[in-house]
Amino acid sequence: MAGNVVGGGKVRNKQVILKDYVSGFPKESDMLITTSSVDLKLPEGSNGILVKNLYLSCDPYMRNRMAKPLRPSYVDSFQPGSPMTGFGVSEVIDSRNQNFSKGDLVWGRTGWEEYSVIDSLESLFKIQHTDLPLSYYTGILGMPGLTAYAGFYEICAPKKGETVFVSAASGAVGQLVGQFAKLMGCYVVGSAGSKEKVDLLKSKFGFDEAFNYKEEADLDAALKRYFPDGIDIYFENVGGKMLDAVLTNMRLHGRISVCGMISQYNLDHPEGVHNLFNLISKRIRIEGFLVFDYYHLYDKFLEMVIPQIKQGKIVYVEDIARGLESGPEALVGLFSGRNVGKQLIAVDPQ
Amino acid sequence: MAGNVVGGGKVRNKQVILKDYVSGFPKESDMLITTSSVDLKLPEGSNGILVKNLYLSCDPYMRNRMAKPLRPSYVDSFQPGSPMTGFGVSEVIDSRNQNFSKGDLVWGRTGWEEYSVIDSLESLFKIQHTDLPLSYYTGILGMPGLTAYAGFYEICAPKKGETVFVSAASGAVGQLVGQFAKLMGCYVVGSAGSKEKVDLLKSKFGFDEAFNYKEEADLDAALKRYFPDGIDIYFENVGGKMLDAVLTNMRLHGRISVCGMISQYNLDHPEGVHNLFNLISKRIRIEGFLVFDYYHLYDKFLEMVIPQIKQGKIVYVEDIARGLESGPEALVGLFSGRNVGKQLIAVDPQ
Repeated sequence: MAGNVVGGGKVRNKQVILKDYVSGFPKESDMLITTSSVDLKLPEGSNGILVKNLYLSCDPYMRNRMAKPLRPSYVDSFQPGSPMTGFGVSEVIDSRNQNFSKGDLVWGRTGWEEYSVIDSLESLFKIQHTDLPLSYYTGILGMPGLTAYAGFYEICAPKKGETVFVSAASGAVGQLVGQFAKLMGCYVVGSAGSKEKVDLLKSKFGFDEAFNYKEEADLDAALKRYFPDGIDIYFENVGGKMLDAVLTNMRLHGRISVCGMISQYNLDHPEGVHNLFNLISKRIRIEGFLVFDYYHLYDKFLEMVIPQIKQGKIVYVEDIARGLESGPEALVGLFSGRNVGKQLIAVDPQ
Repeated sequence: MAGNVVGGGKVRNKQVILKDYVSGFPKESDMLITTSSVDLKLPEGSNGILVKNLYLSCDPYMRNRMAKPLRPSYVDSFQPGSPMTGFGVSEVIDSRNQNFSKGDLVWGRTGWEEYSVIDSLESLFKIQHTDLPLSYYTGILGMPGLTAYAGFYEICAPKKGETVFVSAASGAVGQLVGQFAKLMGCYVVGSAGSKEKVDLLKSKFGFDEAFNYKEEADLDAALKRYFPDGIDIYFENVGGKMLDAVLTNMRLHGRISVCGMISQYNLDHPEGVHNLFNLISKRIRIEGFLVFDYYHLYDKFLEMVIPQIKQGKIVYVEDIARGLESGPEALVGLFSGRNVGKQLIAVDPQ
């Protein structure tokens, strides 16, 4: 830490700042790395904690926070000129709150910076299981993990033998949904955007089949190839044309859990979905959800998933960018599908 | 019946025939009135019944049956050159089936003709309560009534005090959904396509508010006017632009039951729906349904609705066309919204 000392008890605090609201495709240059300083002792009267951020999570929903607060969103927009915020794994350096002590490891909302002062502690989880990689708390053991769990088990109500389709299947959430579905005895197909990802789906995550959507001129035909008898469950991560093609291929009483629509986030005007009449003819249920409504299931989820990880029955692939400076590139890469697996940032460049 | 005798124990049987598959907007000239003849005694070996049709129901879903069997549909297409079929109220004239006797009144699938031989009797209901208008069994006491009941109570899971929006609100189903919602203590707004219908919604069916969608240049603004705090429940009968505007105005954890999409049935390519991201941000559930899945609730539904009708707490408005010959005009009129209330045909022109 010596090299970071800036005098007066303060240390250097590198930060990722959003320059201005973004429309269209986000670029690295929409963000800026600045250096501020931070006092490693919280002032008297504070009720918060000071943390050193270890890992920061790059998540598609952050695109909505980069936009002017106009479009419907469930989260506040970032403040241009201020450090961005997101999910991360952090170590408590100082605490003025009775529930947290120096040395505690936590995951939850923090800043895109080296050190953060966190005042609202309600949605911060203390990390109890440290015998798994800490970075997993940005993914399989954190928000994306619980998202996959709630979206698949709670919303899709899967049954053994059903057919399951997952889009963005090698991503932070998709890779887990596919593995949960296989554990349940379902037939599972995933779509992704490169040969490398498609190979990963089949060889590493155990999907029955997988395809590269970029190489399919006709998504409807692709789905018919893999689901000649139709799709019982669709785990929706992308929206737009894929949703349209899926609707045509759903089976009677199918369920669609809508987790994300990443293909739409950079469009000023979202694509139209034309095949909604299938909802009636096939009695389909579509349900959007947010992980925040399922935080009460977190302990139950960990009880299920940790043994599976330790026994090697569930695996997790991460794409780790090193150093806070790599944050903008890593985040922007989500929208071109550059990452393979869960994208995160190790704040320490080493 | 004397005038109908054609000799050899046979009587005249006027029929409505679909000439050929329809694309685009259906026209009266897509159908044809012909005269055939029918034997009033069923042949030995038959296991069916012969009925005299009293009332025939005009329902939007029939548009799908007029199309070439290409688009996804839950019902078979009509046979060009043959009499159309649909829901109706009929009297049993002859029976070779032990469950039905001469003189029984029934509702269910029958032909668009004066007399029909019905061989598949599974979805035919014997009418037990004859102290209400028999025509009601094409509407409030028949398929549309059970549709409104299942779609509202089972799919929407309404709670007292919630806000409810119904499109095509003066139609066969919509007028009931609005009244059910009022009985439950909800705030209810309906949309319809004429001043007369809007007046009916407020004066006759007790909707809190109603508007003529044809006079609203901006459906989003119209919905914001009537639902400043958003919509908890949308009972969807129309699809397209209205669904898009509703999605923007739904509240958190809102429910949409999709009963029909009449605005889309005459389009070769359905309109795109753009605002589906709201499903996620507001955790909305959309569910399509078909009444056929809820036939087991029919007795329970009658137990609820018949006393309400007798006490005047639920009313029903019918638009009755007289004579089988008026069938094509009445059916086509559904798609321009010519009918006020439930459209049906009294087969006897008197």
